[in-house]
Amino acid sequence: MSHQIKDPSLATQRVRLWLQMLKAVRSVESNLRERLRNEHDMTLPRFDVMATLCAHPDGLRMTELSEQLVVSNGNVTGIIEKLVEEGLVERQSIQNDRRAHLVKTTEKGRKLMDHVTAEHRGWVDELFEGVSEPDVARAISIMLDIRHHTSR
Amino acid sequence: MSHQIKDPSLATQRVRLWLQMLKAVRSVESNLRERLRNEHDMTLPRFDVMATLCAHPDGLRMTELSEQLVVSNGNVTGIIEKLVEEGLVERQSIQNDRRAHLVKTTEKGRKLMDHVTAEHRGWVDELFEGVSEPDVARAISIMLDIRHHTSR
Repeated sequence: MSHQIKDPSLATQRVRLWLQMLKAVRSVESNLRERLRNEHDMTLPRFDVMATLCAHPDGLRMTELSEQLVVSNGNVTGIIEKLVEEGLVERQSIQNDRRAHLVKTTEKGRKLMDHVTAEHRGWVDELFEGVSEPDVARAISIMLDIRHHTSR
Repeated sequence: MSHQIKDPSLATQRVRLWLQMLKAVRSVESNLRERLRNEHDMTLPRFDVMATLCAHPDGLRMTELSEQLVVSNGNVTGIIEKLVEEGLVERQSIQNDRRAHLVKTTEKGRKLMDHVTAEHRGWVDELFEGVSEPDVARAISIMLDIRHHTSR
């Protein structure tokens, strides 16, 4: 179905915004990817998995974890496999459901992420240094509008 | 190197903005990906390659093309290979440089993209319907700030 454009000049500006959003996200992402790799020998998908698990200390089912991830999925099962091997994540069986289990961070995983997340926060603060407090608030509300509208 | 955070509450908001940007981009991207596939049997990386070539009617070297792409790279060489096979893109040798060539859209490719790009513009306009004209302008300028700061 084709959408009827009401205001062509606004439509052009919206396409421009969409391209600038894509470019800004690529740019920040590649900067963060490089720092994570250089300073923590960590990939972005792995950071995403660990950060998501840290935000859910009671653990998540694999399906829930996949839904919550922000970065491109990568191979979530493979990432979890390695994190378990390294003792950063553990599996826990679920009562009354023999086929499913929860994944959650270990003490070691949480300690590592406390450190990495603090650094990550500093990097983002630095990369977004040009964005003032009112602009941050405005931009967050615009991004939420876009998401709510998109997921309808 | 660690960055010194000056204003912790602003840093927290900046991280929040970064996550919301990622989520908004994923959400719009997956919506556009689905429509491109359903209505034009076209992948997002292929659309990106074609749109970039259309924006440079005199053609681009492969290295220039890769630099200009907005969507994740995919296999640019493979995509071009197929587009050439389908008669949507052509290769042109460069005078005085026997090893390099330009890639550019064919007449057929441009006709296809005129149609797809117009639809794409309508989809973006629809997905961004909740974003008013002043918000679009403000958000574009914020995205540019982030990019300029990031690429320094």
